[in-house]
Amino acid sequence: MLWNELEDQPCSLARTLSVIGDRWTLLILRDCFLRVRRFDDFQERLGIGRPILADRLGKLVDAFVLAKVPYQQNPTRYEYRLTPKGLDLYPVIMSIVHWGDMHMAGKRGRPLLHTHVDCGHQFDPVMACSECRGVLDPRAVRVSPGPGARNRAHLPASTETGAHDTAAPARARAATKRDRRLAKAKVST
Amino acid sequence: MLWNELEDQPCSLARTLSVIGDRWTLLILRDCFLRVRRFDDFQERLGIGRPILADRLGKLVDAFVLAKVPYQQNPTRYEYRLTPKGLDLYPVIMSIVHWGDMHMAGKRGRPLLHTHVDCGHQFDPVMACSECRGVLDPRAVRVSPGPGARNRAHLPASTETGAHDTAAPARARAATKRDRRLAKAKVST
Repeated sequence: MLWNELEDQPCSLARTLSVIGDRWTLLILRDCFLRVRRFDDFQERLGIGRPILADRLGKLVDAFVLAKVPYQQNPTRYEYRLTPKGLDLYPVIMSIVHWGDMHMAGKRGRPLLHTHVDCGHQFDPVMACSECRGVLDPRAVRVSPGPGARNRAHLPASTETGAHDTAAPARARAATKRDRRLAKAKVST
Repeated sequence: MLWNELEDQPCSLARTLSVIGDRWTLLILRDCFLRVRRFDDFQERLGIGRPILADRLGKLVDAFVLAKVPYQQNPTRYEYRLTPKGLDLYPVIMSIVHWGDMHMAGKRGRPLLHTHVDCGHQFDPVMACSECRGVLDPRAVRVSPGPGARNRAHLPASTETGAHDTAAPARARAATKRDRRLAKAKVST
């Protein structure tokens, strides 16, 4: 699979990576959610070369993730604002930030705190089920082919739940030993 | 900022990208959550060169995201399993998949369906507040410096909420016109 084939893949993750699967792009989007909008501000905050920044902003505009909006005439100057499609990337950015807060924040602790205006509390983002609002555990999610499934290679290796449990490697080793004993028994009879 | 400086940045997103900020890595992690564990299976599903695959799997093991576990002796063969730190990446993968389902699924619809075993329903993942379990809207989140904040460039451009609202560009244009009128008035008096 080549990178320019990503957006043709029957996989929602691969298609999304064709838009945001670049580190500069993700850092630009982080800044968009921190209310950064102007070319020079992105440039100064990220220390990114102007041609690369212009390229990445242009691609996000082409993908309708950002809108280029004039904020001044004579000369016309533009700022970059998240569209509704761009705002929908908030869970992507927040889940990446939260994993970093949990696992890579270092001794001093997390760099930013988030307060939910609706309830007034500092919060962590949690990924929940749209139906029961329970926190999602990958061991309690079953995956099945949808209407857009085309390629067996993109379907799960197993649709069983519980396949991630920590006792599984020991069980797998035991099963392998048993299989070898059985195989040996078959050969020797 | 250079890529190899990413993990030293006082930003949880930049630090996370130093581990997962590579498209192959994200596709490998997607497959891990689809219960893929063995080198040859990753290779066949992703169509990825063996040296690149070995490199990316090795980096994920070094970062304690995957554990290399023997499943067979003589010769010893290994499989790659998500650690607890790796399982914590589930919201990252699911939020990317969900954005693709919403915005890039094409006419045939989403390739995979997800069922929550706990409640029995097909679901969409939603990003919720850990405190009130309300769905997070970026316009209702306020950001402030945490204990690990070091660099002003990584703090928000504005901590105001509502800064993403769609009427803002029109207001910004109006403000700019007013500012120009005021500036002109000042010059001409």
